[in-house]
Amino acid sequence: MEKIKRIGVLTGGGDCPGLNAVIRAVTKAAINEYGLEVLGFQDGFKGLVTNNYVNLNLKSVSGIGHTGGTILGSSNRDDPFRFLTMVDGKQTYTDQSDRAIENLRNLDIDALIVIGGDGSLHIAQKFYNKGVNVVAVPKTIDNDLGATDVTFGFNTAVDTASEAIDRLHTTAESHHRVMILEVMGRYAGWISLHAGISGGADVILIPEIPYRLECVIQKIQQRYEQDKKFSIIVIAEGAVEKGGEMVIQRMDHTSHDPIRLGGIGNKLAQDIENASNIETRVTVLGHLQRGGSPIPYDRIISSRYGVAAVHAVMAGKFGSMVSLTGSNIITVPILEAIKELRKVDPEGEMVGTARALGMSFGDCL
Amino acid sequence: MEKIKRIGVLTGGGDCPGLNAVIRAVTKAAINEYGLEVLGFQDGFKGLVTNNYVNLNLKSVSGIGHTGGTILGSSNRDDPFRFLTMVDGKQTYTDQSDRAIENLRNLDIDALIVIGGDGSLHIAQKFYNKGVNVVAVPKTIDNDLGATDVTFGFNTAVDTASEAIDRLHTTAESHHRVMILEVMGRYAGWISLHAGISGGADVILIPEIPYRLECVIQKIQQRYEQDKKFSIIVIAEGAVEKGGEMVIQRMDHTSHDPIRLGGIGNKLAQDIENASNIETRVTVLGHLQRGGSPIPYDRIISSRYGVAAVHAVMAGKFGSMVSLTGSNIITVPILEAIKELRKVDPEGEMVGTARALGMSFGDCL
Amino acid sequence: MEKIKRIGVLTGGGDCPGLNAVIRAVTKAAINEYGLEVLGFQDGFKGLVTNNYVNLNLKSVSGIGHTGGTILGSSNRDDPFRFLTMVDGKQTYTDQSDRAIENLRNLDIDALIVIGGDGSLHIAQKFYNKGVNVVAVPKTIDNDLGATDVTFGFNTAVDTASEAIDRLHTTAESHHRVMILEVMGRYAGWISLHAGISGGADVILIPEIPYRLECVIQKIQQRYEQDKKFSIIVIAEGAVEKGGEMVIQRMDHTSHDPIRLGGIGNKLAQDIENASNIETRVTVLGHLQRGGSPIPYDRIISSRYGVAAVHAVMAGKFGSMVSLTGSNIITVPILEAIKELRKVDPEGEMVGTARALGMSFGDCL
Amino acid sequence: MEKIKRIGVLTGGGDCPGLNAVIRAVTKAAINEYGLEVLGFQDGFKGLVTNNYVNLNLKSVSGIGHTGGTILGSSNRDDPFRFLTMVDGKQTYTDQSDRAIENLRNLDIDALIVIGGDGSLHIAQKFYNKGVNVVAVPKTIDNDLGATDVTFGFNTAVDTASEAIDRLHTTAESHHRVMILEVMGRYAGWISLHAGISGGADVILIPEIPYRLECVIQKIQQRYEQDKKFSIIVIAEGAVEKGGEMVIQRMDHTSHDPIRLGGIGNKLAQDIENASNIETRVTVLGHLQRGGSPIPYDRIISSRYGVAAVHAVMAGKFGSMVSLTGSNIITVPILEAIKELRKVDPEGEMVGTARALGMSFGDCL
Repeated sequence: MEKIKRIGVLTGGGDCPGLNAVIRAVTKAAINEYGLEVLGFQDGFKGLVTNNYVNLNLKSVSGIGHTGGTILGSSNRDDPFRFLTMVDGKQTYTDQSDRAIENLRNLDIDALIVIGGDGSLHIAQKFYNKGVNVVAVPKTIDNDLGATDVTFGFNTAVDTASEAIDRLHTTAESHHRVMILEVMGRYAGWISLHAGISGGADVILIPEIPYRLECVIQKIQQRYEQDKKFSIIVIAEGAVEKGGEMVIQRMDHTSHDPIRLGGIGNKLAQDIENASNIETRVTVLGHLQRGGSPIPYDRIISSRYGVAAVHAVMAGKFGSMVSLTGSNIITVPILEAIKELRKVDPEGEMVGTARALGMSFGDCL
Repeated sequence: MEKIKRIGVLTGGGDCPGLNAVIRAVTKAAINEYGLEVLGFQDGFKGLVTNNYVNLNLKSVSGIGHTGGTILGSSNRDDPFRFLTMVDGKQTYTDQSDRAIENLRNLDIDALIVIGGDGSLHIAQKFYNKGVNVVAVPKTIDNDLGATDVTFGFNTAVDTASEAIDRLHTTAESHHRVMILEVMGRYAGWISLHAGISGGADVILIPEIPYRLECVIQKIQQRYEQDKKFSIIVIAEGAVEKGGEMVIQRMDHTSHDPIRLGGIGNKLAQDIENASNIETRVTVLGHLQRGGSPIPYDRIISSRYGVAAVHAVMAGKFGSMVSLTGSNIITVPILEAIKELRKVDPEGEMVGTARALGMSFGDCL
Repeated sequence: MEKIKRIGVLTGGGDCPGLNAVIRAVTKAAINEYGLEVLGFQDGFKGLVTNNYVNLNLKSVSGIGHTGGTILGSSNRDDPFRFLTMVDGKQTYTDQSDRAIENLRNLDIDALIVIGGDGSLHIAQKFYNKGVNVVAVPKTIDNDLGATDVTFGFNTAVDTASEAIDRLHTTAESHHRVMILEVMGRYAGWISLHAGISGGADVILIPEIPYRLECVIQKIQQRYEQDKKFSIIVIAEGAVEKGGEMVIQRMDHTSHDPIRLGGIGNKLAQDIENASNIETRVTVLGHLQRGGSPIPYDRIISSRYGVAAVHAVMAGKFGSMVSLTGSNIITVPILEAIKELRKVDPEGEMVGTARALGMSFGDCL
Repeated sequence: MEKIKRIGVLTGGGDCPGLNAVIRAVTKAAINEYGLEVLGFQDGFKGLVTNNYVNLNLKSVSGIGHTGGTILGSSNRDDPFRFLTMVDGKQTYTDQSDRAIENLRNLDIDALIVIGGDGSLHIAQKFYNKGVNVVAVPKTIDNDLGATDVTFGFNTAVDTASEAIDRLHTTAESHHRVMILEVMGRYAGWISLHAGISGGADVILIPEIPYRLECVIQKIQQRYEQDKKFSIIVIAEGAVEKGGEMVIQRMDHTSHDPIRLGGIGNKLAQDIENASNIETRVTVLGHLQRGGSPIPYDRIISSRYGVAAVHAVMAGKFGSMVSLTGSNIITVPILEAIKELRKVDPEGEMVGTARALGMSFGDCL
């Protein structure tokens, strides 16, 4: 293999606190440790196809470590292997991965660091399969990626959700209400579980443990009888009623119908009010979980990931992803990370901790 | 007039950061300065009718100054003059104000301190008209009460909303989106205006200045042309399109129809996406604005109000409300406070400041 | 008078949260409202003498509204009327004000906006006396400037101090200690008073009310007898023992003696331990009060001040300072602001509020 | 072994955010999972000797999970094996461990959960050696205990220190200063290292890597030449100059000499000013690091530890400590935890990450 002289970096998928800290660490490590050049592709994989990039140097990453967002921009939807292209005057999806690879070649980029979640990592793996020297950094606020103990951004999202529970708590108590907080987590309930334990929720609902309405109401009423005339429920957006289907909040702003929103949190509120006559309010935390300054935990893990990714590049560990395992940063195959989502173990110690604290998962256990 | 020996206190209406700080200040001032006894009625005016109260002493208010909510509980809807009563097996509204007054008399309560907003103050005034020795403390996170420069709770709500804008900012910028934050303010846009200036919003929409969709989109596009491919809009829940009607978010959980939510923020998002093809996201801040620990500003103003209310009681200034005017705490007639809502002056200095900073009010000025 | 086309702006004195928000507001208002050019002098008045400046435009002030510090730099000590100059190979103080004025003239600067506290405002007034078109913006975290209800930065400092009290509180209580927090305020006790009320301090010591050690200890012991085996004392750096002298913390790092630090907070701790045998700990908050992101209250007031200063320039109100009076921004003569320091009134309502809450000022009242 | 019916719990040593969350988790798990009775000894091991305790039930631990401090009180110095006792009218140290054990026996306490750091764990081990059924929970904000990846409280302390760096940063930059932040860590530099990476310090000084003054100054000057006229130094209280000795801040308030304070941070400031003429300021973070509400990470780990400690008691794993290893809570012998302090590895990945980011450890590497 030839010597690495120039690397590229991009951020893919949804916003996540810590992206800039990774970009900064990649750039600084590449320059300080190995004297590399660093190009940053803009708006995720889209910039790879359109050859849209900026040079990153020590100055351009100075002072961004504690900021939210990504200075490179991102895109949730642009996949070079299925890229929205204008063909014969019509928009259609075409494979533009070869064009992307050609851009990399023309720019003399020896390796590409992809910072992304499940979707971006699938694309990264495909590029690796086609011969690109890829190293990945695991990003998702949901913390549901395999092969790593933690992704950056997750603990900041938990922080935001936990603070929201603190805020709702006082109103719930003062006004004798059930307060529902809907948090992110379509397939895994990590944010709901962590924020629930941290914030002292009474009911924690997660996709991994289908809930029964009667069990939720039973918990609320038990508390009522103990003179606690309020309850806090934290629910993952992907939580499901036993026997029911996922009710994801619709974002169809383009509909001409009256706007119909409301995910599982709203459904549950309606169900509780119908069944119990207890005033119930819903807060959907939404994008607030993705933004803002990363907490120190995430700034540190992002910095370690970024530096480790550069080391992995120099060690020729392509097709791999940096990973936190225990206290150590190691590398694992990207394939292992995207093999299956990391879910909450319904029989595990964390769920057991919540149950021991008296929290219900809506399953009458 | 007889000497004051025992006073009552209650908190009415929606939750508001600082309620406990007022209760604490009232209780401490009453005991420390004048050796009074203090009874706290529970769940707002409801406790007055049902004779539900607790004794408040130095110990019971210790350590609550920085907590959200109210240790006395509150109720948004119970009005003694129109109280939901069971008559002949049917629920009906009856006037229970005499019963409330009798309770006050039986408890030897010489004066009543009412901590509340517009609704509670109307009730307080009616009790005063019937001879009760009432002093009021102005509470509303909307800051739309007359006759006082500021109500407690408002600056905490602005803090929460401003922090939300900070969080949305980074995602908007990274993902080239329009981000809409819907905040409280049904009739007055104070939270929207203050949070907008503080957070650096690009568009601020308030009830006092009806907006035109084309002006909002014009602002977004001007920014786009200046290579700022994102915009932050903060909108009061009571903002209206010029010529349109108020679109308040429906909370009708008991409907059997599919849940239809979505207030003016959602409407605006839909309208922008329809008209401009720019990805737009909405966050409804909702109850997060009402809860949580009051910021120091509100803890201080709450303490000052609480102490001043006790002084006003001892000075026999019944029918009055404590008020911040400039740097001074004075008393004003309750009637003056509820005469009309304090609204944002569309020609005033604050709106002018926002305009000078380049912010748009959606009116193409 | 000629038409104003180009203005200068500078920030003088110690750091203060909100400086950047003022610079941003000045620049945006000048450009958006009046099409002016704006030059920013660097490192306070020093840049005026050395002709060191940058052009400020909309881009250079974008995104700085919520940041601490000042993009223009500042200097605590450089006074053009007494400027450290090299004369005949020796450093000596000379009057360089004419050179500064000549620089302003050569740059075609029609008016100068000075953002500063007592020291900077004295200099500003001298320049005004020599014919410079000066408008001032009041800055000091101590809030002790006359002729305005509030300076920007003050409420952020109170926030920091109040949060520190919250942190010390739990340790004090768990470990049965007296915890002393020394805050800024050499001549006026505003930070100490506000943070003390907000944080629920037991003793508040300020320069305006000389304390007696026996009264402080009496308060601690009263609490001890009420089974509150801890006390929180907040003390302004300029507080004095009755009959004693000011004990300002020495910062003389260049001394060859063993480093001797410790201001009034350390003295008081020693005195309490000597007299009472109760374990006492001191925290000197120091520079933490000057830095960090301004809270929304300060971002807003800074924005209003900045815009108002530009309006004042255009209205030809030279020699004046913008001021918050009640809810309104007005202009007052700089002379009025620097006539005398605004101090806490020992008989005033704020001190009375603290006393009513059971707080002691160390004077056995 | 007999069935466990009643357990004791105590908190030893310095304050640490998360103590209450552990107490709450222990109590709730003991009652909810196993129907045990729980006694809380007051003021650490002192309460064991003086037989001072309270009953803990679900109500007494309700709502304390997010609070700082410990509802049980603590004591830094009371060791039953060397207990300050009045003997023949004189204070002397005697072994009161048998008395403590007799108290446990008289109270029918079957097992004791000790929440503490190195000192408390040594005592716990001695009690275990004398036959007491002890289980330990690792507590220290310094994170220097062996046999666990993390202690609770540490990440909150890092958060506080990191925020302090953020605050100092803006002032340093605006005023062209060197700002030194002295943080805790007498023997291990974990807080300094984590906060330094998180806050973007320029120099990180820790006990594990003796620094040389010339290397610190070299870094400051390198930055100066790159037009960064400020530097941030974070220094652990136990950091040492190469060839020098530890300079711990003296707290000798009882001295009759002028108060002499100033630890290594002050020494370094003096040395830098003497050697370089660059204005340098010190902030000693002190007790602010020990107090306040635990961040969500610590609330969660505290909850897990507390529940796991109860499980360990019921499994008869006496003489053991709960420990986080990777993502799992396990038990390890207390002996292993106190065998040696866990220190920063000067050649490890974390230090390497900081170096790659361009941070200096004052060793000219």
